[in-house]
Amino acid sequence: MTKKRIAIDMDDVMAAAGKKILDIYNRLIGTDFQEYHFIDKGYYDVLAEENYHVVREEIFKPNFFRTLEVMPDAVEVIKKLHDRFEIFIVSAAVEFPNSLKEKVEWLEEHFPFISWKNIVLCGDKSIISADYLIDDHEKNLSTFKGKALLFDAIHNQKLEGYQRFKTWKEIEAFFDNEQ
Amino acid sequence: MTKKRIAIDMDDVMAAAGKKILDIYNRLIGTDFQEYHFIDKGYYDVLAEENYHVVREEIFKPNFFRTLEVMPDAVEVIKKLHDRFEIFIVSAAVEFPNSLKEKVEWLEEHFPFISWKNIVLCGDKSIISADYLIDDHEKNLSTFKGKALLFDAIHNQKLEGYQRFKTWKEIEAFFDNEQ
Repeated sequence: MTKKRIAIDMDDVMAAAGKKILDIYNRLIGTDFQEYHFIDKGYYDVLAEENYHVVREEIFKPNFFRTLEVMPDAVEVIKKLHDRFEIFIVSAAVEFPNSLKEKVEWLEEHFPFISWKNIVLCGDKSIISADYLIDDHEKNLSTFKGKALLFDAIHNQKLEGYQRFKTWKEIEAFFDNEQ
Repeated sequence: MTKKRIAIDMDDVMAAAGKKILDIYNRLIGTDFQEYHFIDKGYYDVLAEENYHVVREEIFKPNFFRTLEVMPDAVEVIKKLHDRFEIFIVSAAVEFPNSLKEKVEWLEEHFPFISWKNIVLCGDKSIISADYLIDDHEKNLSTFKGKALLFDAIHNQKLEGYQRFKTWKEIEAFFDNEQ
């Protein structure tokens, strides 16, 4: 039987991008926001939108993506899913050309069991065909034709209409019941 | 009405990779093969397979992809198709991490009307969903679920079972009859 395909987003799903952005924001703006400040709030209910350009410049600098921390339990759970499903990593990375090689190298370091053949770096994810998509952005989930799983993030607290997963352990439990 | 999507491969479809590889082969091995030598022949009926590792090393060097020539009429025809269809550029580039940024820059230079949102750099193209795929490799065409168009190349002379297009002008004529 053909294995079903799971497409997995990188930033804020596999790699702790939001955490690093929040650290940069706090450092540059002189605040002390923590993740719990965002519970049930809009992203810009907490952060000042006019400060965001400062953070955005940092994202374009070399090594931002290469040095991101891996999300808790992501390696262990994705490795387990890799046995039963076909795993594709799908990252909207083309917006940041410097990040392209960094993202491939990051995956090689932390997820060496994933082949380069199963990496997709794109812009608009509506071109992706798979059975499941795990992502933290509505724009990606809303155009997806398979089962769309929302990964909880500080910027999507008010998003409704998708099954929300707060941790990789919850993702693991979901797929224990999928064929 | 939603525009139909055309996914277009880069190497040997938009960018003259094969021509450059043949030039490198001739220079390094001391031969003088031209494209017409390959008509109706297998790639390795002409070139010696044991020499290919020498060429392959060159492909991994910086600037190989950045400096490729544009295929004749590709800009003009793709620009015209861009008005009636949604164009996605889909390149199996992740095998060559150095090439990723170069490919995005090459597209920005020669096809500035194509947004970064419509660029896909991947490994296995079976994850791509579109209405048409223009490609020169059977492995990409055979798994594609839409209409698969074979772009003629020196390495696919013996491939059968697909509608073959020798030039971008032939592609243009084909899409003049598609809705």
